[in-house]
Amino acid sequence: MALNKKPVTGMKDILPDEMRIRDYVIGVIKDTYGKFGFTSIETPCVENIANLSSRQGGDNEKLIFKILKRGEKLKLAEAETEEEVVDSGLRYDLTVPLVRFYSNNAANLPNPFKALQMGNVWRAERPQRGRYRQFMQCDIDIFGEPSNLAEIELILATTTTLGKLGFKNFEIRINERRILKAMAAYSGFPEEEYDSVFITLDKMDKIGIDGVEAELMGNGFSAECVGRYLELFRGLGTAEDGVEYLAAILGDYLEPEVKQNLQEIIASVRTTKSSAFDIVFDATLVRGMSYYTGTIFEIAMPEYGGSCGGGGRYDAMVGRFTGNDVPACGFSIGFERIIMLLMERGFKVPNEAKKTAYLVERGVSTDTLCDVLAMAQAERSAGRQVLVTRMNKNKRFQKEQLIGEGYEDFVEFYKKPMKQ
Amino acid sequence: MALNKKPVTGMKDILPDEMRIRDYVIGVIKDTYGKFGFTSIETPCVENIANLSSRQGGDNEKLIFKILKRGEKLKLAEAETEEEVVDSGLRYDLTVPLVRFYSNNAANLPNPFKALQMGNVWRAERPQRGRYRQFMQCDIDIFGEPSNLAEIELILATTTTLGKLGFKNFEIRINERRILKAMAAYSGFPEEEYDSVFITLDKMDKIGIDGVEAELMGNGFSAECVGRYLELFRGLGTAEDGVEYLAAILGDYLEPEVKQNLQEIIASVRTTKSSAFDIVFDATLVRGMSYYTGTIFEIAMPEYGGSCGGGGRYDAMVGRFTGNDVPACGFSIGFERIIMLLMERGFKVPNEAKKTAYLVERGVSTDTLCDVLAMAQAERSAGRQVLVTRMNKNKRFQKEQLIGEGYEDFVEFYKKPMKQ
Repeated sequence: MALNKKPVTGMKDILPDEMRIRDYVIGVIKDTYGKFGFTSIETPCVENIANLSSRQGGDNEKLIFKILKRGEKLKLAEAETEEEVVDSGLRYDLTVPLVRFYSNNAANLPNPFKALQMGNVWRAERPQRGRYRQFMQCDIDIFGEPSNLAEIELILATTTTLGKLGFKNFEIRINERRILKAMAAYSGFPEEEYDSVFITLDKMDKIGIDGVEAELMGNGFSAECVGRYLELFRGLGTAEDGVEYLAAILGDYLEPEVKQNLQEIIASVRTTKSSAFDIVFDATLVRGMSYYTGTIFEIAMPEYGGSCGGGGRYDAMVGRFTGNDVPACGFSIGFERIIMLLMERGFKVPNEAKKTAYLVERGVSTDTLCDVLAMAQAERSAGRQVLVTRMNKNKRFQKEQLIGEGYEDFVEFYKKPMKQ
Repeated sequence: MALNKKPVTGMKDILPDEMRIRDYVIGVIKDTYGKFGFTSIETPCVENIANLSSRQGGDNEKLIFKILKRGEKLKLAEAETEEEVVDSGLRYDLTVPLVRFYSNNAANLPNPFKALQMGNVWRAERPQRGRYRQFMQCDIDIFGEPSNLAEIELILATTTTLGKLGFKNFEIRINERRILKAMAAYSGFPEEEYDSVFITLDKMDKIGIDGVEAELMGNGFSAECVGRYLELFRGLGTAEDGVEYLAAILGDYLEPEVKQNLQEIIASVRTTKSSAFDIVFDATLVRGMSYYTGTIFEIAMPEYGGSCGGGGRYDAMVGRFTGNDVPACGFSIGFERIIMLLMERGFKVPNEAKKTAYLVERGVSTDTLCDVLAMAQAERSAGRQVLVTRMNKNKRFQKEQLIGEGYEDFVEFYKKPMKQ
């Protein structure tokens, strides 16, 4: 029976041209984050199904690729629910595995611990252009640093990396869960409805302030609440320092350190940054994951029209594994989007080795072949890329192909020495 | 409910010390193979279950992590067999996915195509020390090269890589499927029993020639057959050139080009090699996978006591996907074993960036913090690794910890300037 040549639905083969860019970007990321003291770690792609289904992952938990139990543990005939037949699944993000990793290994890790993870994650989303069911994530996280030095270093490391990859004119948008909550409390929304309010607020950039108003009213909130809430956003539109402005109005609804903390992050990043981007306070930034407890941030790239990464503080997640909370803050860059943007703009990997092709006529003696190979080895030791290949009958076509692959120099070897 | 801190059974978390070595080795592999013209590609970790169950994978097919169907396609209540509830699985090697990849993308690939793959594979083996259910494989393969230039380049690239990683005194053992078959035919074994004979032969290094004799007799083969067969191996023990010796005895049982082909590989590798290893003909080398059609080879490392990689020619596998055979030859290095050996011998990654730690007292002003961060950014741009971290109360302990992590220089920043 003929086998299936296609990748599984929604996943893709990566060809050499894209891989060259991916490998280069991975190198820049590892190198740049490394300079900030982030160390690479890795966790298995497979996690216990209980950890993946613990409500840390929001909607992603509906998209898990689940793995069948094996051997005697699988009792298929008796099984009626998925839970009975699976014991593990492919991770849908790197955060849940990282927190498990930290909980498991904290005794052998530095404190604070600065982790870099690059790895694939899987989500069984409806297949659509440019989105795949297997994709690479790239996360940096800091555990054990309660101060805003965590946020500052995460943002500086990420923006430095983006700068090295040639990205300019992007924006880091930053907000605070506690500001979101204080604004909702000040407006008089009931606490159990905050999440619903934030889901609507999150649509501000798509439906505008009138759309948000209509949806909140439609959801049955009082005109007074909604009015007070939107007044805050209208005021923000004209305020010079949004954090200062809100802190003044919110008064006791907002812990004073939140303001100082956030202002220091913005000021530090703004003064220190080496590449062309800006950091701005954005009170409409929500970010979906319910595990965030403090600052939240996102990279906005006009060229892409959407978020190219984001993160925030999640101080209560380690506690889910160990019973003891540990300060934690992370930043994830949208690796696949970055690769897509680079490919779209025809990015060329800099400083690639010079490429030479040796064309060897079929039937050369073993002695000649040995000479050819020794020459190639010497050139490779000197840093050049050398392809040793048989000469085709249609040599001209072969060379054209090789030129297309980036080979610049050609050396030809014949059975009999050519006449001078 | 508290979550599970441990990785899933048989898989492991990789900590920073090991990751540093892994990243370094990956870099050396990509760089060295790149110089030989191998280009990186990647396939999804998940493959259609039909491709994974096509008997190309031998016993590994019993060890597949199978993935449950999703949504309406999963009819659990009616299901009686695994086949009904799964549609895909985690790959158990990189060869089956590579051949699928080549079949799917050949039109967009160079010819010959030299591929480098580094990626995880999964096998649900019984957990045991040093063997994990998720592990990295590292394969190079050449498609479309019928001549022994494929074998020679694969062996030179792999041995050059091992040399760069500091490995010496290893041995490449090489054999030919067609020699294995010719020896069996010459001895009078029935063709349908060859595989059984080779399974016994494969144990030669463990049970010796007497053990092989006993097992073959026990399996019911005639004393004459077994005697003729073992006589060949006894003769090889004293022969100067094993290939020459066997070719002379086997006569018409062996195609003449097999001898010339194999001798040229051995001679070329021996003359060209740049590091301290040897390549030897080994008529007892079998290698398990049934898809091999020609040369087979293996890396023997005395320090490990076993094989550290291997490969061979499999000219008939692309045909399983496309109906048209394409010459193919590959070499897989035992990445995890190499990492284990390096870690055991206390390998240090060369040329790591110098590491400086800035200790910042809690409560410094935003201005001071900005100065500190700007200094750090400048040092990082100059290639140093700089950790900016809060100063702990027990500064001496903190420094000891950081020295343990490889930090050499310390700069301290205080709320108030220290007295001179």
